[in-house]
Amino acid sequence: MIAAWIEDGSASLRRVSRPRRKPGHALIRLLCGGICNTDIELLRGYYGFHGVPGHEFVGEVVEADDSRWLGKRVVGEINLACGVCGWCRRGLGRHCPRRTVLGIVKHRGAFAELLTLPEANLREVPKEVATDHAVFTEPIAAACEILEQVRIPRGAPVAVLGDGKLGLLVAQVLTCHGAAVTVYGRHREKLRIAARAGADTRIVNKLPRAAYEYVVDATGSAEGLMSAAAMTRPRGTLILKSTVHGTVALDAARVIVDEITLVGSRCGPFEPALKLLRGGRILLDEMISAEYPLRDAPSAFGRAQERGALKVLLRGETR
Amino acid sequence: MIAAWIEDGSASLRRVSRPRRKPGHALIRLLCGGICNTDIELLRGYYGFHGVPGHEFVGEVVEADDSRWLGKRVVGEINLACGVCGWCRRGLGRHCPRRTVLGIVKHRGAFAELLTLPEANLREVPKEVATDHAVFTEPIAAACEILEQVRIPRGAPVAVLGDGKLGLLVAQVLTCHGAAVTVYGRHREKLRIAARAGADTRIVNKLPRAAYEYVVDATGSAEGLMSAAAMTRPRGTLILKSTVHGTVALDAARVIVDEITLVGSRCGPFEPALKLLRGGRILLDEMISAEYPLRDAPSAFGRAQERGALKVLLRGETR
Repeated sequence: MIAAWIEDGSASLRRVSRPRRKPGHALIRLLCGGICNTDIELLRGYYGFHGVPGHEFVGEVVEADDSRWLGKRVVGEINLACGVCGWCRRGLGRHCPRRTVLGIVKHRGAFAELLTLPEANLREVPKEVATDHAVFTEPIAAACEILEQVRIPRGAPVAVLGDGKLGLLVAQVLTCHGAAVTVYGRHREKLRIAARAGADTRIVNKLPRAAYEYVVDATGSAEGLMSAAAMTRPRGTLILKSTVHGTVALDAARVIVDEITLVGSRCGPFEPALKLLRGGRILLDEMISAEYPLRDAPSAFGRAQERGALKVLLRGETR
Repeated sequence: MIAAWIEDGSASLRRVSRPRRKPGHALIRLLCGGICNTDIELLRGYYGFHGVPGHEFVGEVVEADDSRWLGKRVVGEINLACGVCGWCRRGLGRHCPRRTVLGIVKHRGAFAELLTLPEANLREVPKEVATDHAVFTEPIAAACEILEQVRIPRGAPVAVLGDGKLGLLVAQVLTCHGAAVTVYGRHREKLRIAARAGADTRIVNKLPRAAYEYVVDATGSAEGLMSAAAMTRPRGTLILKSTVHGTVALDAARVIVDEITLVGSRCGPFEPALKLLRGGRILLDEMISAEYPLRDAPSAFGRAQERGALKVLLRGETR
C-alpha cells in the first residue's frame, strides 16, 4: 500500500507493508487526513522522527475484533495508552508514561491507505457531520482541552494570540462556550474567519499590556509566549496551547509578582469536540486551504508550509 | 531619628527626619524587624532602590486617628493600596496597580525608629505571640498564599525545593495544613528544622523526575526553577514562591506536553498567618540566626548575607 513518508527533512511517498492488526485493534481505511503544525515540525526534524506521519484522520473500519465497528466511519484518540497504570485508571491515558502516539511516537501514522488503532480509541462520526469536517475532531478536542483545565466564566473576555489553524479553532470553541473572545493575529483573511464565528479581532501591532484575565497563546513561537504573558493581568491565567520547542525565556519576576498562572495544554477529549461538530457550530469550510489525494502527499506538505495556508487535507485512495 | 539606609550596594546607618503621619495612617515605633532576602536583593541593586528598607516588622502604635490603636503591638500588611480600584474592591489590594510597598516601592521602610502605615493595614499581635515570633507574620503570610491559590488536598505529597528561610516556612505551613511535605535542600542543619516540624527531608543530589503533583520552588534561583519543573508530574502544579530575577529559561515543550500548571505566588493574607502563630505551630526559635540593635543594622545586613544564615532580626531602640 502507499503512505506518506517523512525522513531527513523531506516528505515523499512510499510503498509500505500493510499494517498487522493486533488483538483489540481495528484496521482502518483512510478517508481523509489533516496536516497539522506538528506534522510540519516532524518534517523539520523535531523529535528525530522518520516514518509515516499523520494523526488527524477520518477512516472506515475494515477489520476489528468487535464486528459492530465494521463499516463505521470513525475518528480516533491519538494516544495509545497502556490501560492499566494510574493515569489510565484516572481516565488520563493521554499522559500514560508508556503511551505511543499515532504518527508521532512509535505508532505508524494515518497518512497511509490503512492504519491501526485500538478499538477503545475509536469514536463513530455522527452521520450529520461531513468527513471534511470530522477530520477537525482532534484539533477541536485540543481546543476543548482548555475548558477541561481552566474554568472560564461565560462572558469573560479572553484574548487568543495567533490566527493560525489552532488559534482559529480555539477562538471558535471559546466563543461557542460563551467567552468574549478577541483574536490577535497578523492575517486579515484569517481574522475574518474568527470574526464570522463571533469573535472580536485585532491586527497585531501594539499589544495591550496586562489587559486580560484569560490569554491563550496559540502562536507556536517563543516570542508569542512572551507577548501573551505581557497581555495577562495580575492573578490571570495564560494557557500555553501551541507547542513551543526548546527553552523559552520567561520573565519570571513578572509571573511571580503578578501571581500569573501558566497552564500547559495539549490533547483533549473527543466527546465535546464531536458534540460541537454535530451542532454545526464551528466554521470549517473556510479553514480548508486545499485538498490532495494521498498519492500527492509531498505536494500537500509543500502547500501546508506556504505562508498563509490553513488546513491542508489528504483524501484517501478510493478502492 | 536613626534608620538603616541602603544605597549603592552598601547598608549604613543614617539620621533621617521623623516621618509625617498622613490622615488614616498610624505612627509606629519599631519593636523588631526581620531581614528578608528581598532586602538583600535591594542592597544588591535590584529595583534601583535607595533609602530605608524593611517590611517585616512588629511595632507599637504611638499615634493614630483611631485612638483604639494607641499602645497596641501590631504587624502590618506591606502593600499600601489605593482602596478604590477594582483590585482593592475585590480584596486584592496586594495587586492594586497604584500600590506603594513598605520598604520596597515608594514608602519608607520599617528599619527605623518610627514608621507609618495606613491603619487599615494593621493587625494586632495576639498577646500569646512573642515579638520575635510575630516578626515572621509577613513571610508566613507569603507561605499561606500558596493555599489561597492552589487547592492542595490534605495528605497530598508536596516537594519544597530550597531550605532557606522561605522554604522552611513554606514547608511548615504546608505541614500544618496536612500535606505530606518533603524538603529538598543543601544544608543538613536547616533541613533538621524542617524535619522537627514534621516534614521529610532530602539532601539534594539527584532530584527525582516527574515525581510530585505539587512542587514549590523556594530556591530563589533560575536553575532551581528548572529543577522544580523537572520534578513536577504531568498535570501537576509548580508554585513559584521565591522571586527569580530577569528572564528564566523554561522548557516550554515539557510544560505543554505534560500539561503542567505554573503558579506565581507573592504576598499573602495575614489572618491565617496570625492564626498559625497563635497556635504555636510554627518552629521559629531555631530559624533566628542573630539579633542586632537597630543601630547595628550594617552588621546585621552583613550577617544576613553570610552562608548558612537564616533570619537576622533588628531590635528597635528602647526609649
